[in-house]
Amino acid sequence: MKLDHVGVVVANISGALQHWGPILGQPTSPPEEVPGGGVVVAFLAAGETHVELVEPTGPKSPVSKFLATRGGGVHHIAFSVPNVDAALATVVTRGGRVIDPHGRPGARGRRIGFAHPSAFGGVLVEFVEEAP
Amino acid sequence: MKLDHVGVVVANISGALQHWGPILGQPTSPPEEVPGGGVVVAFLAAGETHVELVEPTGPKSPVSKFLATRGGGVHHIAFSVPNVDAALATVVTRGGRVIDPHGRPGARGRRIGFAHPSAFGGVLVEFVEEAP
Repeated sequence: MKLDHVGVVVANISGALQHWGPILGQPTSPPEEVPGGGVVVAFLAAGETHVELVEPTGPKSPVSKFLATRGGGVHHIAFSVPNVDAALATVVTRGGRVIDPHGRPGARGRRIGFAHPSAFGGVLVEFVEEAP
Repeated sequence: MKLDHVGVVVANISGALQHWGPILGQPTSPPEEVPGGGVVVAFLAAGETHVELVEPTGPKSPVSKFLATRGGGVHHIAFSVPNVDAALATVVTRGGRVIDPHGRPGARGRRIGFAHPSAFGGVLVEFVEEAP
C-alpha cells in the first residue's frame, strides 16, 4: 500500500515553508481549505509521496489541541487505496476502531477517511482514495 | 528530496505486525539491531518509501521515553540524500540545530544523521545516505 503523504501540523504554512521549502521546494498547488475540515493544507512533493502541511483555521479546528499541546509535528500518515470505504471496513473487520465509518470529501477533491490511532498502535492513519 | 521512511516506535515488532502486516505486508528483511542505537528495527514497504518499526532494546534505549510517555507512534521521518554530512551541514548553515553533527552508521548499512526537531517545527528529521 503506497504512502500518499505524511501530515504535519504547523502554526502557519508560510512560516513552515521557511524550513521545509529548502529541502522539499514549494507546494505542488496553492494551499486549500478542506471542506468542513477546519484546516488549510498544502502539499510538498517528496519523491512519489508528500509532506502535507496542516494549519488550523481557528481555535475550534480539530488540530488546534495538537498544536497547543505538542507545538506541531507529525499528526498522521496517509495511504492510497482504491476504495476508502472498503479500507475503513477492513480495519473494523479486523477489530480496529475508525474515526470515519465512511469516506468523506478531503483535500485535492479526493475521498478520505481516518482510522482511530488505537487501530495502528498510536499512529493516526488516513486512507485516501486514488484519483479516478 | 525523496522520503526514505517514516519511523514508528512500537513496544515490540511482532505485536505491531498484527496491525501493520495486513496493510503493508511482512518486513523487507529480518529485524536488525542498529549498532550502538539501542533499537531493533524492521522496514515494511509502502510504495517507494517504508514504514520503519522501531523497538527499544531496553529501558536505556533512546526511544524508551517516547514509548512510555506517548505509548508509541510516529517518531521521525527520514529523507534520502546523496551525502548525509552535507545535508546536516546545510541545516546548520540555515540556523537550525542538529543532533548528529556528522553522519554515523545506521540500519541497512547506511550512514544516517538526525537534525533537531526544532529545525523542522517539531518534526524529528533523519537524513539517510543513498545506497552506493
